[in-house]
Amino acid sequence: MSTHRNRQDRIRSWLEEAAVDAIMVSSPPNVRYLSGFSGEGHLVLTAEAGAICSDSRFQIEAEQADGLSVAISPNGHLEAAAEFLHSEEAGKLAFEEHVVTYSQFKKLEEAFGTDSLEPVSGVVEEQRAVKDADEISAIRKAAEVVDTALTELLSELEPGPTEKEIAIKLDHRILVSGADAIAFPTIAASGPSAACPHAQPTDRQLTAGDMLKIDVGCRLEGYCSDITRTIFLGEPSEKFSEIYNVVLDAQQTALERVAPDVTCAQLDKIAREVVQGAGLGEYFTHGLGHGVGLEVHEAPRVSARSDQVLAAGMVITVEPGIYIEGWGGVRIEDLVVVTEGGCEILSNTPKMQY
Amino acid sequence: MSTHRNRQDRIRSWLEEAAVDAIMVSSPPNVRYLSGFSGEGHLVLTAEAGAICSDSRFQIEAEQADGLSVAISPNGHLEAAAEFLHSEEAGKLAFEEHVVTYSQFKKLEEAFGTDSLEPVSGVVEEQRAVKDADEISAIRKAAEVVDTALTELLSELEPGPTEKEIAIKLDHRILVSGADAIAFPTIAASGPSAACPHAQPTDRQLTAGDMLKIDVGCRLEGYCSDITRTIFLGEPSEKFSEIYNVVLDAQQTALERVAPDVTCAQLDKIAREVVQGAGLGEYFTHGLGHGVGLEVHEAPRVSARSDQVLAAGMVITVEPGIYIEGWGGVRIEDLVVVTEGGCEILSNTPKMQY
Repeated sequence: MSTHRNRQDRIRSWLEEAAVDAIMVSSPPNVRYLSGFSGEGHLVLTAEAGAICSDSRFQIEAEQADGLSVAISPNGHLEAAAEFLHSEEAGKLAFEEHVVTYSQFKKLEEAFGTDSLEPVSGVVEEQRAVKDADEISAIRKAAEVVDTALTELLSELEPGPTEKEIAIKLDHRILVSGADAIAFPTIAASGPSAACPHAQPTDRQLTAGDMLKIDVGCRLEGYCSDITRTIFLGEPSEKFSEIYNVVLDAQQTALERVAPDVTCAQLDKIAREVVQGAGLGEYFTHGLGHGVGLEVHEAPRVSARSDQVLAAGMVITVEPGIYIEGWGGVRIEDLVVVTEGGCEILSNTPKMQY
Repeated sequence: MSTHRNRQDRIRSWLEEAAVDAIMVSSPPNVRYLSGFSGEGHLVLTAEAGAICSDSRFQIEAEQADGLSVAISPNGHLEAAAEFLHSEEAGKLAFEEHVVTYSQFKKLEEAFGTDSLEPVSGVVEEQRAVKDADEISAIRKAAEVVDTALTELLSELEPGPTEKEIAIKLDHRILVSGADAIAFPTIAASGPSAACPHAQPTDRQLTAGDMLKIDVGCRLEGYCSDITRTIFLGEPSEKFSEIYNVVLDAQQTALERVAPDVTCAQLDKIAREVVQGAGLGEYFTHGLGHGVGLEVHEAPRVSARSDQVLAAGMVITVEPGIYIEGWGGVRIEDLVVVTEGGCEILSNTPKMQY
């Protein structure tokens, strides 16, 4: 049985547990995960049947979706879904409440009645959090393409180019090396700009004595990678070395503890305690990491507030950072897959030692 | 008074007409349009006050938004909006029903009660459809950057490179020429692939006797451009010339008729009749065009089903196409601004003559 059919069947088991007759999946990565279909539309599943509900522009691609029919309506995607579900005599319908808009909900209400609708969230996302071998292989390839380009770029860096020029050059190398796309706008933040966790590249020129934070990922076979490196141009200041080593220590300590059954909140705490121990806890202003897969940010969330537990096959980032306004910032991020014995690091661009 | 404050005041006039006390704007381009704020969060406006409702990550950027307070809550953006609106004693609240998810709606319902909520759509989008001089200037610049890169690329094209290589080279030239980003994944579809209106670039190599359709746009100062050209490598076949000239004729005929008070449905019909007159109507499978601004696709929609009317200051695409499965396709797209006397074409990459 194909991967997509297996995934659909796991959702069918959920239908039974949740005592609903059908689910309408509307999040594009969720639809793609369950069917391979990457056009626009919804995917509906019942115990016995299923369909991609779209329009004529996507008919050919929808017909290739494994184990599913195609439902097309000139009136719209939701209307196509409603017609299909009525023909299947589905009673209780689950819908993704974190994706479906209020207008779409009103249409569903009109088609099915309020009492037949069951808002749900995270059903497919939870399944997506644990990757199979093919998914891990795609993520590994995406990480390798970035590693090659980033390692080369970092080895050549000299004062002169602007942040924008650095980002454009890196992106171009990644794309000519076979990536399908850049996964998110590449961050190249130099000097004081490095204090902003998600700075956009500017026309600021790199000069000797600058720190430079680069956060980049690509997409390959639908799957994303994500890595951050921070380097110093020239002889690092004492403050940079100190802060860099705290971040590196926090990251290394957390990486050593990644394993099945560790909670995401625990892992965040392990890294945070290293930063707090150095008296810099207030400058570590975000969570430790996040899952990566069809989306750059997906389950599990690796933060103090997360209630998720690591399991073999999850792919997560481990990315502590220290950001000091007016000075700059350091983040070091690796992408890892949780294994039975701990984790395997997928991002292998060398880390600088200061 | 600043541009953003003027825009906010136009929404305040709407509040009065619609007899609601406040509106929560949740669509990111709508928020940006009204305030310049491009972080995450909602914008709320009452007759007297207004706020960006976000979280601490975006505090600095939110504080720069003209004429607005900043409402931050550790509990979330909607919670920040609810607290601000309660403090302003807003009674009836309009929300964007095409953007707000069902989960967000349930939170609003809890905070305000069902009867205080008024679902609306298109309020800000309608205002955005007519551009001011600064917006047109940004779109013109974005179109010029693409024109320079595309004209150069087309003049050099020879058999050999793959579709992906062509797209990567074009994107790179656009970015090094000063664009902030590529506006949407560039289409470079050759040979039979040109039959798909939205083909993704593949590893197919360009060969003599191929047609090549390129659809590309960039983003500059937040605003998008959009253009399509189709060319033939070598001596065009009779069929290609025939179809190319039908598309060119349809486009030219429509361009000559763009003017205030023409309905979008009429304009679509004008182009479609040319294609139908050549017996090829069934192969023109999409609408004639769309508005372009902060988003690549925005109001007005230029199609048979549209009920919108052109007005001076609207920026739209005019892009008829003919797509024949197994053979290929031709699309020619220009970006124009509607003027009092007709229109000005913003995309000036030369069109081939066959």
